[in-house]
Amino acid sequence: MSGLQYDVLGLGNAIVDVIARTDDDFLARENLNKGGMMLIDEARALSLYEVMGAGTVISGGSAANTIVGVASFGARAAFIGKVRADDPGHAFAHDIRAMGVHFPTAPAKEGPSTARCLVLVTPDGERTMNTYLGACQNLTPDDVDDALVQASAITYLEGYLWDPPAAKQAFLKASAIAHAAGNRVALTLSDSFCVDRYRDEFLDLIRKKTVDIVFANQHELCSLYQTADFETAVTALREENLLGVVTCSEHGSLVVTREETHAIAAFPIGRLVDTTGAGDLFAAGFLAGLSRSADYVTCARLGGLAAAEIIQHFGARPEVSLRDLAADCGMG
Amino acid sequence: MSGLQYDVLGLGNAIVDVIARTDDDFLARENLNKGGMMLIDEARALSLYEVMGAGTVISGGSAANTIVGVASFGARAAFIGKVRADDPGHAFAHDIRAMGVHFPTAPAKEGPSTARCLVLVTPDGERTMNTYLGACQNLTPDDVDDALVQASAITYLEGYLWDPPAAKQAFLKASAIAHAAGNRVALTLSDSFCVDRYRDEFLDLIRKKTVDIVFANQHELCSLYQTADFETAVTALREENLLGVVTCSEHGSLVVTREETHAIAAFPIGRLVDTTGAGDLFAAGFLAGLSRSADYVTCARLGGLAAAEIIQHFGARPEVSLRDLAADCGMG
Repeated sequence: MSGLQYDVLGLGNAIVDVIARTDDDFLARENLNKGGMMLIDEARALSLYEVMGAGTVISGGSAANTIVGVASFGARAAFIGKVRADDPGHAFAHDIRAMGVHFPTAPAKEGPSTARCLVLVTPDGERTMNTYLGACQNLTPDDVDDALVQASAITYLEGYLWDPPAAKQAFLKASAIAHAAGNRVALTLSDSFCVDRYRDEFLDLIRKKTVDIVFANQHELCSLYQTADFETAVTALREENLLGVVTCSEHGSLVVTREETHAIAAFPIGRLVDTTGAGDLFAAGFLAGLSRSADYVTCARLGGLAAAEIIQHFGARPEVSLRDLAADCGMG
Repeated sequence: MSGLQYDVLGLGNAIVDVIARTDDDFLARENLNKGGMMLIDEARALSLYEVMGAGTVISGGSAANTIVGVASFGARAAFIGKVRADDPGHAFAHDIRAMGVHFPTAPAKEGPSTARCLVLVTPDGERTMNTYLGACQNLTPDDVDDALVQASAITYLEGYLWDPPAAKQAFLKASAIAHAAGNRVALTLSDSFCVDRYRDEFLDLIRKKTVDIVFANQHELCSLYQTADFETAVTALREENLLGVVTCSEHGSLVVTREETHAIAAFPIGRLVDTTGAGDLFAAGFLAGLSRSADYVTCARLGGLAAAEIIQHFGARPEVSLRDLAADCGMG
């Protein structure tokens, strides 16, 4: 652990997930892009909810899931994200604080309701997400507390923050403060369609050294470099000269720096139930590893362990203590 | 199936569950009676929620869980229960209708909020429930539609309805209508502490033939007859001369009539996760069996199958089609 107060500070959309089982026919009928994240307005959120199956409600949000995972590994974690002062907003705040995360962001007293993501899980375990951003649109640079960023060894930002207009300014502010304090900044590319929306800006973040660490899955990386060839994308990432962490589902992960590339096998699982949060929790394990100054291979193994836990049940919040799980697996 | 429109109509408290993992120390610290159901007021619901862990929100309510199970077996099901027109009330209505259940009860436009049950699950899989009845207290005989009861082969009532004062009148009205139409009435004793609160009234329901079928677990049955000896309680039940169905956790179940007693083994499980809903879903399987005129042993086996499904995951709503599950197990 660093001498700072927090190991990882996350900045992201504060979302409550409503998860339901479905089938491919339903996705086709509703014109949903299987495996993706689609932004929807409140009217669509209501109409889609009407026709979807019975829901299980669990707090979510990509960076928030990661931060909860970091805390579950025993690292010191904080989160900045915007809810409204309504029932789901109260639940989001309760759930993240119950996991030991410092969550200081004031809820919005008016405006859109707390964000929700309608997550549809097909029998193959794939999840299709439909997000109403709601109160996340009210996250502004004012919500970024300088002292908190300065006190956090790594500030972790989600690419999804490029969707709500004011949030990207909060993102840039956080990065500037972190770097001025000599701390590191990490970015997850979030989703290949998200990369498609903001490719040039994301490349800018990387090339102007706004971020030091990049998390992506293979689809996001290929989208970033507009290539169908994964090797080409990895080579391009290597040339960015930062720390790149690339997940490849059941094929494990790659850690890519200018000097070296490590390939790490996926952690074996019993039964795939719901892929929601796989990338989020991989990042959690990797960041938890960095916070204890582990080598990159160990970081990636911790990431794989957390991802394996999360995809064997519904929802993107760990059901067991990841610290205990790591200890049980000889990675404590 | 009968010639009537519905196989089973349930009447019960309409509740949304908030489920969290905990440990025995927490239960002791909060003075909670492990394995029981405790009624709490709204202030206590808020203060307990503050200190409990991150929650998973899934619709619940004992009879509602049973009715959803009945529908999942492919039987025709309806439910009467009171929510308020708020977010959790909307979720409850959505979830039960999404399972194909006819749910005509109008939500309360004012008064207490929708009922919630804070369910605390210990590592041994036992659940401890803390229920704020909220809008359930507004269920009245006016919510019982004569035609719906007349159109339902079995009306299924939960003992918990004795807690909200006006609901018991709704219960008695439903029983009278059902019997006038020549239909059957079933009762679950709900909880041993509930039996302790209303022992004389429950015995009255049985002895005055207000109910024809009684579901209970061994603790509830022993509480009903104020004996520590299970055999004594079963003998007393036999003498009531109705259809008694008694569940004994991992030891299976008994079907008790004046003429005969059948013992049926429990369905084997992999891993016990959360016992919430075990009794509710046993009743679902048994009632689904009755609706297809199965013999009592088959009914109890269907009950055991549904109970086994529900205790292997969080929450008291089935995660798979029970009809498909029964077919896969040769009980279709």
